[in-house]
Amino acid sequence: MQRYFVEPSMRQGDVFHLPKDDAHHMKNVMRMEVGGEILVLDGTGLYRCRLEALDKQAASARIEETLPIETELPIRVTIAHGLPKGDKIELVAQKATELGMHHLRIFEADRSVSKWDQKKVPKKIERLEKIVKEAAEQSYRAHLPTVDFVAYDEVLQDASNYTACLVAYEESAKQGEASVLAMTLAGLQEGDSLLVVIGPEGGFAEAEIARLTDAGFKKAALGRRILRTETAPLYVLSAVSYHFELKG
Amino acid sequence: MQRYFVEPSMRQGDVFHLPKDDAHHMKNVMRMEVGGEILVLDGTGLYRCRLEALDKQAASARIEETLPIETELPIRVTIAHGLPKGDKIELVAQKATELGMHHLRIFEADRSVSKWDQKKVPKKIERLEKIVKEAAEQSYRAHLPTVDFVAYDEVLQDASNYTACLVAYEESAKQGEASVLAMTLAGLQEGDSLLVVIGPEGGFAEAEIARLTDAGFKKAALGRRILRTETAPLYVLSAVSYHFELKG
Repeated sequence: MQRYFVEPSMRQGDVFHLPKDDAHHMKNVMRMEVGGEILVLDGTGLYRCRLEALDKQAASARIEETLPIETELPIRVTIAHGLPKGDKIELVAQKATELGMHHLRIFEADRSVSKWDQKKVPKKIERLEKIVKEAAEQSYRAHLPTVDFVAYDEVLQDASNYTACLVAYEESAKQGEASVLAMTLAGLQEGDSLLVVIGPEGGFAEAEIARLTDAGFKKAALGRRILRTETAPLYVLSAVSYHFELKG
Repeated sequence: MQRYFVEPSMRQGDVFHLPKDDAHHMKNVMRMEVGGEILVLDGTGLYRCRLEALDKQAASARIEETLPIETELPIRVTIAHGLPKGDKIELVAQKATELGMHHLRIFEADRSVSKWDQKKVPKKIERLEKIVKEAAEQSYRAHLPTVDFVAYDEVLQDASNYTACLVAYEESAKQGEASVLAMTLAGLQEGDSLLVVIGPEGGFAEAEIARLTDAGFKKAALGRRILRTETAPLYVLSAVSYHFELKG
């Protein structure tokens, strides 16, 4: 059944009012008609709905059943990524969404070669949100991950809101560190939150690492190999899924 | 220290004779001179070597020390991937190499939209090998993953050479399957081998799945979400690393 992510404000009582682009998709891509069924996700729940109206401009769908959410990781994982080169952040947004990320924060690190012109940030975030939405619908996510662009200071200040905070650190991988990620996950329970900070190409500057450790972040290796910056979040999220969702 | 992958045939006694492109890299990119140190990997071992000769055409380096190999997964993982669309197989080759894949097999599945003209296969494999080599050097691999293009029959016939065989199956994810991957990894020991077969966009046809299960492959879910075809191998390899390399 086709899934549609909507804003919570689109719900009035038991009816969702869906916008033009969704109506277009239902009518012209899915060839749906009034009486057909869709799944609607509003960020808080997953609903089986029946179409009551559908034209070129809008659609309305009445909730028939609230369904259990079974496709979300039991812990909320935020990836804070030092802006990488080119369009790598788009790959991260798409793949990390498929793998269950809750929230993506992007910041300019000392060694970020790319810089985002402040004027262009809204457009860039909008594009990432579109990528995230498509990936969320395709991968059957119930939560639509959020994306923001923040200062490094804000990433640090926000750390106290998480149950645990890690930094992916390649020097730890070189030294054979092999317990921080697994120990951290073993200490988390359903409903907890995890913040993982990842550097850009070239990693973090020493001063950046010092501030992270001062703020209580633990340095974690992601296996024994040196991963590229855009591969690191995919490892973390796969490991979280494997740890919490699969049972040996 | 810079790493160079060479053919075993380039070794004579305790000296490696490196070709033109490596000599160029040492001389013009790394600005090295005779007497400098490099790491050489020949597929069987990792050696610290000292440069004895270096010009535009070639370089020779004498082995000073055999180093322990610490960056390989304890089990050998082969990914057999149904040819996906566009250049996605390049992303798989690069990222799966970073994550420790041993061998990549590519086959045309029933639902593969892309087809490879048999005449162009050598060029395509050569390009993938170049991507794999760069990723292996960057990620500190000791083994250079191999790549081949084979018939689906050959993937099935070769299955008996592996300790365990899995197929990543999205229907299993939808049904909440949650133990096959973890149980399989729990049953493997250092030195064992694992074959994971992954379908193209649209997944496997029913007849293909039937042949896999007849051949003893187990259907494994990779978490609770529906992953795109190119994300599945990255999940598997991250899970293998997490399971075997990190300790809680």
